[in-house]
Amino acid sequence: MNPLYLLDKVRVVLSHPSHPGNIGATARAMKTMGLSSLYLVNPRTFPDKDAEARAAGAWDILNDAKVCANLDEALSGTVLAAAITARPRDLSHEVFDARRGAHELLDHACQHPVALVFGTEMSGLTTMEVSKCQIVVHIPANSEYSSLNLASAVQIMAYELRMALPELRSLSPVANIAADFNDMELLYRHLERVAISSGFLDPREPKRFMQRMRRLFARARLEKEEVNLLRGMLSALEKGIQSPQQTQNLE
Amino acid sequence: MNPLYLLDKVRVVLSHPSHPGNIGATARAMKTMGLSSLYLVNPRTFPDKDAEARAAGAWDILNDAKVCANLDEALSGTVLAAAITARPRDLSHEVFDARRGAHELLDHACQHPVALVFGTEMSGLTTMEVSKCQIVVHIPANSEYSSLNLASAVQIMAYELRMALPELRSLSPVANIAADFNDMELLYRHLERVAISSGFLDPREPKRFMQRMRRLFARARLEKEEVNLLRGMLSALEKGIQSPQQTQNLE
Repeated sequence: MNPLYLLDKVRVVLSHPSHPGNIGATARAMKTMGLSSLYLVNPRTFPDKDAEARAAGAWDILNDAKVCANLDEALSGTVLAAAITARPRDLSHEVFDARRGAHELLDHACQHPVALVFGTEMSGLTTMEVSKCQIVVHIPANSEYSSLNLASAVQIMAYELRMALPELRSLSPVANIAADFNDMELLYRHLERVAISSGFLDPREPKRFMQRMRRLFARARLEKEEVNLLRGMLSALEKGIQSPQQTQNLE
Repeated sequence: MNPLYLLDKVRVVLSHPSHPGNIGATARAMKTMGLSSLYLVNPRTFPDKDAEARAAGAWDILNDAKVCANLDEALSGTVLAAAITARPRDLSHEVFDARRGAHELLDHACQHPVALVFGTEMSGLTTMEVSKCQIVVHIPANSEYSSLNLASAVQIMAYELRMALPELRSLSPVANIAADFNDMELLYRHLERVAISSGFLDPREPKRFMQRMRRLFARARLEKEEVNLLRGMLSALEKGIQSPQQTQNLE
């Protein structure tokens, strides 16, 4: 297998990009390194002349860009999504630097799509957006001025992905089938429902319980079969607590 | 010596830049990675509003930029200059890729200034300009579309220089307290008990359920607090299903 093929499996997801010029520059940055799959979540303006101008010939990527209504749609079917940040985060996921993150992504790309997720220009990714990703990838930067341009951040990640290719010689695809984004979202919903019906989680004051669960399971990179096992147990529990809790819950 | 000091010794030389926006974007790219010394050989327009806009706060670098009449002036005093190219060249220079080139430059920067030399946007460096440099640094790119934006090329080299600073290479681990062996064993026992009392796990035919759970949670490397959360939920579930299961459990 030609290792360049792996780059086709890498989605670049821009969440709420506000400057169309950055979308064009992103397409160009991607194409120089051999990436091709661009997803735009709620772009302020697209298509746009500025985007075309800055794409400098990478128009195929702009034309094929998928415009999505929300991040879930853009991540549908992926087995690993990396939230890209230039600042360290509180309650962070497993954190990789750009180089190690690129390797981690390619390791998973042999099986199914993976994604790089970039936040909006002014404020980056929201906590909710980060929580939909399984890892955080940190681009090392000047702590006194970490204001990386959006397309420049894409350029660095695309470059690291390309640099990570030749070292794939020893790449042994994981034998088990990874759970994808959709499997995981269903698991989280199920877990939350059971936590609430058990009385453990108060939906009026959820604190950060689900965030913590997402962080934990994101680290584990679940397999499809593991998700099925967990959900099987959750269903049995749900059934078990249905009768005695019903009256209490309805109070 | 603070290794960041080495970055002050690296000059970024733009030869005949034609778009002032690229000069501003270059200043920004440099500053994000801790570089500060910008040399402009015969810029078409400078200073310029577009340059200021694209610099996005890296104005100190623009203000301190040295405008030179020719490349010799910009390279004066340097001990090593690298011609940056995205295309292989038929020349007798020693060729490094971006990563090895960054190391080579920093090795020399302990002594005296070194330089990264970038050509004009449309046609890159002339043969004469390359001949004034001691090494050629090649940024790996898509052979069918190697049209790297000037500031993006600067961004990649600046990033590689920062990554080449030995002390800055690794990330500091998050300081959360890891669950220890005993915490984990208690969690597994608790999980097993709840799985049995829910009716999901048949203790006479457990298959490999607990083995699979161990494998899953081992991968996640749990923190103490996460174990507490999971056990809190398990306790609530246990209580919820107690009544209907009680008789069975007490045999």
